[in-house]
Amino acid sequence: NAGLNENAAVAVAANITRAEQDGCKSHGLFRLPGYCASLRSGKVNGAAVPEVRSIAPACVLVDAGGGLSTPAVLSGHGMLVEKARANGIAALLVTRAHHFAALWPDVEPLAAEHGLVAMAFLNSKAFVAHAPGGRKPVYGTNPMAFACPRRSPDGGLSERPFVFDQASATMARGDMMIAARDGHAIPAGCALDEHGEPTTDAAAGLRGAQLPFAGHKGTAIALMVEILAASLTGDAFAHEALASAAPGDKGPTQHGEVILAIDPERCSAGGGRAAFLSRVEDLLGFVEAEATEAEEAGHSMRLPSQRRFAARQRTAEEEGVVEVPEALLQECSALAASD
Amino acid sequence: NAGLNENAAVAVAANITRAEQDGCKSHGLFRLPGYCASLRSGKVNGAAVPEVRSIAPACVLVDAGGGLSTPAVLSGHGMLVEKARANGIAALLVTRAHHFAALWPDVEPLAAEHGLVAMAFLNSKAFVAHAPGGRKPVYGTNPMAFACPRRSPDGGLSERPFVFDQASATMARGDMMIAARDGHAIPAGCALDEHGEPTTDAAAGLRGAQLPFAGHKGTAIALMVEILAASLTGDAFAHEALASAAPGDKGPTQHGEVILAIDPERCSAGGGRAAFLSRVEDLLGFVEAEATEAEEAGHSMRLPSQRRFAARQRTAEEEGVVEVPEALLQECSALAASD
Repeated sequence: NAGLNENAAVAVAANITRAEQDGCKSHGLFRLPGYCASLRSGKVNGAAVPEVRSIAPACVLVDAGGGLSTPAVLSGHGMLVEKARANGIAALLVTRAHHFAALWPDVEPLAAEHGLVAMAFLNSKAFVAHAPGGRKPVYGTNPMAFACPRRSPDGGLSERPFVFDQASATMARGDMMIAARDGHAIPAGCALDEHGEPTTDAAAGLRGAQLPFAGHKGTAIALMVEILAASLTGDAFAHEALASAAPGDKGPTQHGEVILAIDPERCSAGGGRAAFLSRVEDLLGFVEAEATEAEEAGHSMRLPSQRRFAARQRTAEEEGVVEVPEALLQECSALAASD
Repeated sequence: NAGLNENAAVAVAANITRAEQDGCKSHGLFRLPGYCASLRSGKVNGAAVPEVRSIAPACVLVDAGGGLSTPAVLSGHGMLVEKARANGIAALLVTRAHHFAALWPDVEPLAAEHGLVAMAFLNSKAFVAHAPGGRKPVYGTNPMAFACPRRSPDGGLSERPFVFDQASATMARGDMMIAARDGHAIPAGCALDEHGEPTTDAAAGLRGAQLPFAGHKGTAIALMVEILAASLTGDAFAHEALASAAPGDKGPTQHGEVILAIDPERCSAGGGRAAFLSRVEDLLGFVEAEATEAEEAGHSMRLPSQRRFAARQRTAEEEGVVEVPEALLQECSALAASD
């Protein structure tokens, strides 16, 4: 109803549904009004049909044409999987896409459905300073995601692979916005104010710059993500996207993304996928056993995505029913009814 | 003189020389006695000749045969470069190698000499706990290195690409050992004691566990490195290497390593290597301009490897002369004279 073509709408709806099922409220229905606004304003091209092209034996390029990233990434997955299987490793570049979603959905299906190890790199508008010593936003929040297949009890691929999706900033921007709204202080080491000085005032931090995690180490990763996501794809760096954004526009800008996929059946020292999955269980089983021990001693030790998979389990037990705030439901219903 | 075959000895000597030229004293001549001891004890196989094998169109496997990693990695570089050029992206797996060197030399030449973007992942014996909640060493210090080519003023490839090489632990283990030796406290958040409690006592931290940087985010990266470096290569996980190490053996154990290489000439949205290098200069030039501004305002803002490249420049100006402590020089001379 907001002008998004059907293929893209189905992909975005599935993405939002999955986020809700997994308890990721920040990337669920909460995003729907933003999607619609950016389509209606013409910032995002709802008519765009992603163009998928093989650019090298192990490389795929998807031109999103100024549309949304979710349908663009999904339309490239098929050729990426084929190329990873044929060559052992392959890369997918996505250009001219607007990324409103989380990054884990771009890699999780590659592990869960295809048994591939996958990494994704995405930049954004500049929000994060160079550390130490930087005074203003230079890098995007620059998430990096990783997915590795796991063996299910029946010997097949588990629906719950090992997955993480983490920004290069210490604190999630959304959490900083909530702190600013509620007038709460933020921890030291998360932000600089508009003069480049350290601050614990959330609103000042939003006007200034976020800080990368772990100082120079997080900075190095933010820089790597900029290079991979923007230089290979010919898309905008974070500081360029910030400079060219319309005043007051808080939404995502057009960016590049890079996904790498490795097939353990081909790209391994021996024993193929079965041996690989067995070794991954050796490692994660060891970590999970320590987590159980830690739990008994009163310490909580989680694996990435564990909370998300637990929410997925609860949703399944509730036969797919998720809770949505009344106001959000009304807002979404109104959008469905409007022209 | 310690039983290392000539090809490997030449590779290791070049590696040590480069570290000294770059001011990386911790990986220079300082390591030579350790190399010799591990060769003489038979822990490292000095006669090993790396076997290089194509295992998929875009994948190379090098079996180091229980020898050192430096000659094994270098012997695989040629085929890795060929495969990256042919396919756009390629992977090099190294198995059964002892890694005594820094990780940056495994990726820097791929960028500086071949114009490739490269990433490397290496695990080690367990020194690092899972955070938060872990109480004992589970992961290696697990460095990850990244190299991206830069354009030199004459339009060719710069000898100083963008390179970082960083461990998943907050503090370098070597720095913790120096603090323990000198009786200095270490900062909070770097280590747990042998009971799994936070400590600022360096000696207790060495007996206990190091902590990953940035809590759960560093843990996620340490886990990713374990999976890539050990599961694809069929080598030991950090906790297995710790369990099987001889009592009192503080040296490196046998491990796997994975290197990925991307050719921007093939794996890019358009314009090939020239366009890529130009965009990388746009980004790094912007960051360097901000660093100059920060410097003028009294803040120090460095790029990764900047200190190392400055040391290289100084060494070149000194016509290759580096300073070596008298005691170390005598120790190395004695090793050269002994049978």
